[in-house]
Amino acid sequence: MKIDGKAYRTIWPGDDGASAVIIDQTKLPHRFETVVLGTVEDAARAILTMQVRGAPLIGATAAYGLALALRRDASDAGLAAAIALLARQRPTAVNLRWALGEMHRAVAPLAPDTRAAAAFAKAAAIADDDVETCRRIGAHGVALIRAIAAKKPAGAPVNILTHCNAGWLACVDWGTATSPIYQAHDAGIPVHVWVDETRPRNQGAALTAYELARHGVAHTLIVDNAGGHLMQNGKVDLCIVGTDRVAANGDVANKIGTYLKALAAHDTGVPFYVALPYSTIDWTLASGRDIPIEERSADEVLTLQGQLADGSVTRVAIAAPGSPAANPAFDVTPQRLVTGFITERGLAPADRNGLLALYPERRESTA
Amino acid sequence: MKIDGKAYRTIWPGDDGASAVIIDQTKLPHRFETVVLGTVEDAARAILTMQVRGAPLIGATAAYGLALALRRDASDAGLAAAIALLARQRPTAVNLRWALGEMHRAVAPLAPDTRAAAAFAKAAAIADDDVETCRRIGAHGVALIRAIAAKKPAGAPVNILTHCNAGWLACVDWGTATSPIYQAHDAGIPVHVWVDETRPRNQGAALTAYELARHGVAHTLIVDNAGGHLMQNGKVDLCIVGTDRVAANGDVANKIGTYLKALAAHDTGVPFYVALPYSTIDWTLASGRDIPIEERSADEVLTLQGQLADGSVTRVAIAAPGSPAANPAFDVTPQRLVTGFITERGLAPADRNGLLALYPERRESTA
Repeated sequence: MKIDGKAYRTIWPGDDGASAVIIDQTKLPHRFETVVLGTVEDAARAILTMQVRGAPLIGATAAYGLALALRRDASDAGLAAAIALLARQRPTAVNLRWALGEMHRAVAPLAPDTRAAAAFAKAAAIADDDVETCRRIGAHGVALIRAIAAKKPAGAPVNILTHCNAGWLACVDWGTATSPIYQAHDAGIPVHVWVDETRPRNQGAALTAYELARHGVAHTLIVDNAGGHLMQNGKVDLCIVGTDRVAANGDVANKIGTYLKALAAHDTGVPFYVALPYSTIDWTLASGRDIPIEERSADEVLTLQGQLADGSVTRVAIAAPGSPAANPAFDVTPQRLVTGFITERGLAPADRNGLLALYPERRESTA
Repeated sequence: MKIDGKAYRTIWPGDDGASAVIIDQTKLPHRFETVVLGTVEDAARAILTMQVRGAPLIGATAAYGLALALRRDASDAGLAAAIALLARQRPTAVNLRWALGEMHRAVAPLAPDTRAAAAFAKAAAIADDDVETCRRIGAHGVALIRAIAAKKPAGAPVNILTHCNAGWLACVDWGTATSPIYQAHDAGIPVHVWVDETRPRNQGAALTAYELARHGVAHTLIVDNAGGHLMQNGKVDLCIVGTDRVAANGDVANKIGTYLKALAAHDTGVPFYVALPYSTIDWTLASGRDIPIEERSADEVLTLQGQLADGSVTRVAIAAPGSPAANPAFDVTPQRLVTGFITERGLAPADRNGLLALYPERRESTA
């Protein structure tokens, strides 16, 4: 999407054909800085330190990282070592291992002296595929926004609430939850986004508000507590969120707090949609009860990153020293609270039959 | 309640008999500092700058402020000027005007040279009355905690979730929502409190966690997003919150985000109680739809106060410059989501008949 008028992806090949360039997301929203990845170690560090985050972007970065490794050592041993290095940076990231598997399949059969060039091409293809998947999610989702706009007075914005960042900064372009929003905006449908700040890591305040602002999409930042009140008062037409994992029955794991917004949407009659690509469905899990929930560091709750008046970025403590804190990172929204899924193949009810109707190849494989 | 073993109220008369002393709550949780109020201007400033906050404590501070004014000028003109000065510091605080009305009734009939002493005595009585009201709320509410504890294995804590600060720091002692918790703790019933941080002003992180810690009550700070997940997983036995205003039908206005926790409690079968004194019931409002919701400054969302590593307290920006924000300060929880009220006269169902059963004098007055 655009940053102040200029189109960007979150990762792109360097002009020298021997590097990749990323946006340093740890500096957002306070500073926009790009980082050139010249070696596999650069790519590994970018993943570990969360200069890049979001499952699709982590996968694409790992793919470019492997290409960078093969420029230096394209032997079988070099290939294996680079895959091992990259894979261990975020052990729970499914897309990271998936992307490395794709890369291995593409380059391992080749003669070593052709591997690096093939790897760069494959990394670019993985990035392009993600862009196309997200574009399709948006193309299907924009119909929901268009239908709501048609029922409103001309020019009245469609008010959409989102939680966390399932935006283009988490992907290569478009985003998942944000793709319908960007496509509505680009098509001239008036939209306004309520952005949950998304404590404790504040991805809404730091990333979603930032990317919407830079692309020119009207939005308002709110605390996570406020969404229910806005829904009660008719100020939300539609909720769209992303997801980290969907169980086969349609239960949705997403950033902590998603469940509370789904409850409010259900209580007030606001449609609640989840945007996702096929790769997010975990067909092996019968329900959301089986999804493991990561417990993260208490420091994320007890301290918070922000910018001082002098422009420097720092962390401040918000509780008394010694206050204990708990930090579950995700929650599970039961499928009964989800109006539907927005996928790259279209819309579906949030249940097993809905998912299988979109992905019939899965029905055959589990028959 | 106790701060590191020593019993405190939030306001008390100075040893010189000519002042009042408060805890500077703007410094919490990072520093415990007391402030001596020697003049009515000191009291007005303490209310305006939120060194004292919470409806009952604002009322008690105004009462002492008026006594301080009468030491200097006990004439009818002095009395009127002091009331006007104090009343305008927080124009929407109902308790502030109530306390000033009580003070006026107590001292206006007296000869000027006896007014100051009478005013100090009346201010002390207002503070004592608040303590007794809160103590009774706790005495009734502790029965709920005791009943839950009786069904658990011996020694297993009763897990109670609360939102914002309806604690002793908002009152003179005990608090409203926290009074049953303190009385359970003091009676040896094991309790553990999940403390919502309560963005945007973080009263949970800054005040509730602080006061529970100092009194020795087990607790864990969580982000506002986490409570629903904890309830889904059986980690919450009971919710108790305070309220700013209750409509005659039992709808509850409280800090923004309360509605979301009530939804989760209802969805998961967790009892959800609201603790309040009689003065919080607004019999003139038929339902919560009529309760005006204060919209506060966007800066409270866009910036956050915390402590730097060097011990200094500052505000940091958490969003990009220019991000717009909305900040509704309260929401309304429909009475259908409230299990019951805990009042100084006992427990009641959250509806008009429940309230009238506790306050039959109101039935007569509206008949």
